[in-house]
Amino acid sequence: MKLTQNIVLFALCAICIPFSHADEGMWLFNNPPYKTLQDKYHFQPTAAWLEHLQKSSVRFNSGGSGSFVSADGLVMTNHHVGADCLQKISTKEKDYVKSGFEARSRSEEPKCVDLELNVLMGIEDVTTRVAGAVTSGMSTAEAEKARRAVINDIEKESRDKTGLRSNVITLYNGGQYHLYRYKRYTDVRLVFAPQKSIAFFGGDPDNFEYPRYDLDICFFRVYENDQTVHAEHFLKWSEAGAAEGDLIFVSGNPGRTERLDTVAHLEYQRDLLAPGALNLLRRHEVLLKNYSDRSSENARRAEDEFFGIQNSRKAYLGMLGGLQDPAIIDKKRAMEKTLRDAVNNHPKLRLAYGDAWDQVASTLKTLVKIRDEYNLIGYGPTKGAQAFNCELFDIAMTLVRLAQESPKPNAERLREFSEAGLDSLKLQLFSEAPIYDDLETVKLADSLGLMMEVMGADNELVKKVLAGKSPRDRAAELVRGTKVKDVAIRKQLTEGGLKAIDNSNDPMIELAKLIDAPARRIRQTFEQQVDEPQRQAYGKIANARFAVYGSSVYPDATFTLRLSFGEAKGYVEAGQEIPWATRLGGTFEHAEAEAIPEAQLSTARAS
Amino acid sequence: MKLTQNIVLFALCAICIPFSHADEGMWLFNNPPYKTLQDKYHFQPTAAWLEHLQKSSVRFNSGGSGSFVSADGLVMTNHHVGADCLQKISTKEKDYVKSGFEARSRSEEPKCVDLELNVLMGIEDVTTRVAGAVTSGMSTAEAEKARRAVINDIEKESRDKTGLRSNVITLYNGGQYHLYRYKRYTDVRLVFAPQKSIAFFGGDPDNFEYPRYDLDICFFRVYENDQTVHAEHFLKWSEAGAAEGDLIFVSGNPGRTERLDTVAHLEYQRDLLAPGALNLLRRHEVLLKNYSDRSSENARRAEDEFFGIQNSRKAYLGMLGGLQDPAIIDKKRAMEKTLRDAVNNHPKLRLAYGDAWDQVASTLKTLVKIRDEYNLIGYGPTKGAQAFNCELFDIAMTLVRLAQESPKPNAERLREFSEAGLDSLKLQLFSEAPIYDDLETVKLADSLGLMMEVMGADNELVKKVLAGKSPRDRAAELVRGTKVKDVAIRKQLTEGGLKAIDNSNDPMIELAKLIDAPARRIRQTFEQQVDEPQRQAYGKIANARFAVYGSSVYPDATFTLRLSFGEAKGYVEAGQEIPWATRLGGTFEHAEAEAIPEAQLSTARAS
Repeated sequence: MKLTQNIVLFALCAICIPFSHADEGMWLFNNPPYKTLQDKYHFQPTAAWLEHLQKSSVRFNSGGSGSFVSADGLVMTNHHVGADCLQKISTKEKDYVKSGFEARSRSEEPKCVDLELNVLMGIEDVTTRVAGAVTSGMSTAEAEKARRAVINDIEKESRDKTGLRSNVITLYNGGQYHLYRYKRYTDVRLVFAPQKSIAFFGGDPDNFEYPRYDLDICFFRVYENDQTVHAEHFLKWSEAGAAEGDLIFVSGNPGRTERLDTVAHLEYQRDLLAPGALNLLRRHEVLLKNYSDRSSENARRAEDEFFGIQNSRKAYLGMLGGLQDPAIIDKKRAMEKTLRDAVNNHPKLRLAYGDAWDQVASTLKTLVKIRDEYNLIGYGPTKGAQAFNCELFDIAMTLVRLAQESPKPNAERLREFSEAGLDSLKLQLFSEAPIYDDLETVKLADSLGLMMEVMGADNELVKKVLAGKSPRDRAAELVRGTKVKDVAIRKQLTEGGLKAIDNSNDPMIELAKLIDAPARRIRQTFEQQVDEPQRQAYGKIANARFAVYGSSVYPDATFTLRLSFGEAKGYVEAGQEIPWATRLGGTFEHAEAEAIPEAQLSTARAS
Repeated sequence: MKLTQNIVLFALCAICIPFSHADEGMWLFNNPPYKTLQDKYHFQPTAAWLEHLQKSSVRFNSGGSGSFVSADGLVMTNHHVGADCLQKISTKEKDYVKSGFEARSRSEEPKCVDLELNVLMGIEDVTTRVAGAVTSGMSTAEAEKARRAVINDIEKESRDKTGLRSNVITLYNGGQYHLYRYKRYTDVRLVFAPQKSIAFFGGDPDNFEYPRYDLDICFFRVYENDQTVHAEHFLKWSEAGAAEGDLIFVSGNPGRTERLDTVAHLEYQRDLLAPGALNLLRRHEVLLKNYSDRSSENARRAEDEFFGIQNSRKAYLGMLGGLQDPAIIDKKRAMEKTLRDAVNNHPKLRLAYGDAWDQVASTLKTLVKIRDEYNLIGYGPTKGAQAFNCELFDIAMTLVRLAQESPKPNAERLREFSEAGLDSLKLQLFSEAPIYDDLETVKLADSLGLMMEVMGADNELVKKVLAGKSPRDRAAELVRGTKVKDVAIRKQLTEGGLKAIDNSNDPMIELAKLIDAPARRIRQTFEQQVDEPQRQAYGKIANARFAVYGSSVYPDATFTLRLSFGEAKGYVEAGQEIPWATRLGGTFEHAEAEAIPEAQLSTARAS
């Protein structure tokens, strides 16, 4: 086996489906598996090597990864990652998603609307400070407040000191806290995109599957002060390419995994989370498909969102397929028993960590009770409210809360309104990305209907939201009546602060004001009774794991930079030899292939 | 206005969306609205006129309506009604759905696989005999048994006497029972079908909507003893066609309506039935779409089922849209109050019928408790078990029960195995319609997953069904292992009776035997604690309605022959003039139209 400098991209959006044939792992850059690399591949990454790869890697705020590939700020990523920008700068007349794009000179590169790229500049372990803020006598409500305050403080101090985007990341579900500092780039321009029919050849059936035949690629260029940035670190094109047997590294930001979850938590995902998510995703998929089938312009408007839904649906199906496999759950159960036995057989560990698994189970019992309401209206830092599935509502809600949170001391604010995050928040809030009234209405009508289905037609909040109308009529009225589609109005309301919001009778702002208090209540219940005690319990489990196994366990994915590696080689599946790489000719063979039963292929690599 | 002899077809599959612009009603042929026709249109249908229309009308067992249109047995229907036959006689090489078909001579007409056409020969009111079998002292379990026995008896006597297919139909949810006698035709051959792209132009978005531009048509010919039948009654082609202002009659078999349901029953549909049905339909839609996208042959195999799912999904969306409109429910509530007040203000009526509404509500409370299990495994006369969504299971279950029920006295048998229905049942059971292993596996895997989701991974029956495997692996094993795909094996097992079934170790037969007992139990609970008391309560409500309003109320649709009528005229919707008829040129204008927001159109005519 020869070691190659060829480094490929690794980008996953909603959820991580690991390469089952790579060496297992998504390792932290500040804790790579030196021993495995040395023992198995006789390769020892130096600090310089790691820094080079880390600073060549780029995260897209739209959900995905890429890397610098030239000194002049050229960035390569997957087409499905670039699609968010392509969609937002497209019009009926010029569809960059469908038709692709090629800039013949730099002056032809169009600017993306609200794309932010992040390059990880450094990681600092802040576990001691975050954990130290929570003391043993505190109630979970006090603990949640204290933890939020210390995280908001750490981020603000870091940003004030370094000028860098600063995020405290929760690792091991609360076992560790690391401060990630990023360089932000917000002037990103499109260089090249193939037609979607080339970039996504094989469509949904081939998505997440191998072998696959498409040119899933897109190029951007990063500017600062209207000049291309000079990228000190970038990945060079390898003319020779990779060869069979090469050691391959993959650097990227996988979205989310749950492999450190307790068995009770996995069962919760199997029985409620995944089936519920799939019902909602299928609902949105059918809704957008029907909307899209009405005309080619409708299809264009919904395209990127539709893709995202299909992508997530497929990922969740894979996840559920794994969770429903008794062999997998039984293995997890045996692993958990081994760890718990080790803890229980050691009096000190038992005293410190022995009750953690039951604590997780107890938070899940609370979650089961509140999850419908939390999902529907519990607007939070990384989640919308399922009852109001439209961008205009998200904008209105952000305006309302920005006005409420801005006057508060930084430490007391809701996480997403802390000082350190405001630049990125306002980039989104004042985005000129197009919003389509018809699509907004269709989505809002459906989600108001969902609210009525789940909370009940006689629920007081439902009645107030619908104001005596059917979900469809009410949605049409809200979208027709609101002015927040206009970015100038958004800026005006932001500058006007709480008074402007209080005085506004814009119907979508009124709706956001109506929802705000109950949404805060259910979010607080979630944060104090589910999230915080879960963090405490998982903190114990992480420590128990460290005590029993050492630090050779990597944390679950958190949309932060990770390192994976493995050997380029083929494998056998269902009796078939799968080659280590695909050829262009395979595209044609694949297009002409016989019927392929889904059961043989889909979710095959889920775990 | 001139009266025209032109009579058009009316066919609805799963559910009825009435023409809101026609005169309201789906009238029984043995109780047409003479007075309205006389007062409004000065038209009095004679007995001969009614008989002519009735005997010209044809019902398709695949779900739909048509009519004789020549003396030589030519039958015209909708393409989507004919599609069941088209699908079943198609192969990879010859796709009648996609490519259409045209027989240039009678010798070229291919025979449909398992299509049965029914022509209604007569209706007899048997309410007194059915109602008389249930006496006031009986428990609901005894009542259910007695009612089933008398219905099985009536059907058998009628068939023995007349040789006609005989079905006792429940009207007014149990207020009346009529015996329908049909002539059966089982040698039906394909004459003409357009390409699906013509027959279903506008696709799912245009389905159930008007204006619509497609040639949704299909022709069959009926044979007996290898000769074309002579149709004494048939509808003649009108060379002049209909004109604006004409009185139009529509004769057909609408599937199902719920307009006589109590408000509690409508709320049950709004809150549980429709949302649940939609979740399942969307699940199947996404599953089959993903399967179909894999190859054109996959798409062909799933086509007719996929269409049916989309069709039902759209119908349920319309139904739910209506139920979620407070204006509609409020109107229903007011109507119910008026009737209940009239009953309560009349001592005799109050005593006889006053408690009926509460009785319906009480059955729904029971239904809420048992519905998950009943839906998943409660195999019944017109429903499959959602947990086993594949044809091979349906076949196995029918074989198992046929063996068990055949030795019993007719009166004691499960409804669908009564003597009178065996001919039609065996036509389906021994059908040579193709079954595709890959599609069966995909569907069964998904539905076993659903069973696990809903009943729980630790449920004893779920564990027995899955036998320690994942839903996907178990489905593959079952489909691979069973022999019931072979019609000869089915006939062998049928001839072998109970002993052959008991001795069989075919894995699908084994599964059916495992499910049979719990499926009978939950079905019995449903029939005794929900269906029977509901029939009794609705019987009271129907009588109360007759007492208060007379017999001017038509019963809900029951996939039996009905008569609708109205004036051919345009209307105004959302400010737009909608013309009374469409023109061919409209097809081209429609194809080039701008984006049309779904919210403006879909579900517009649901009630």
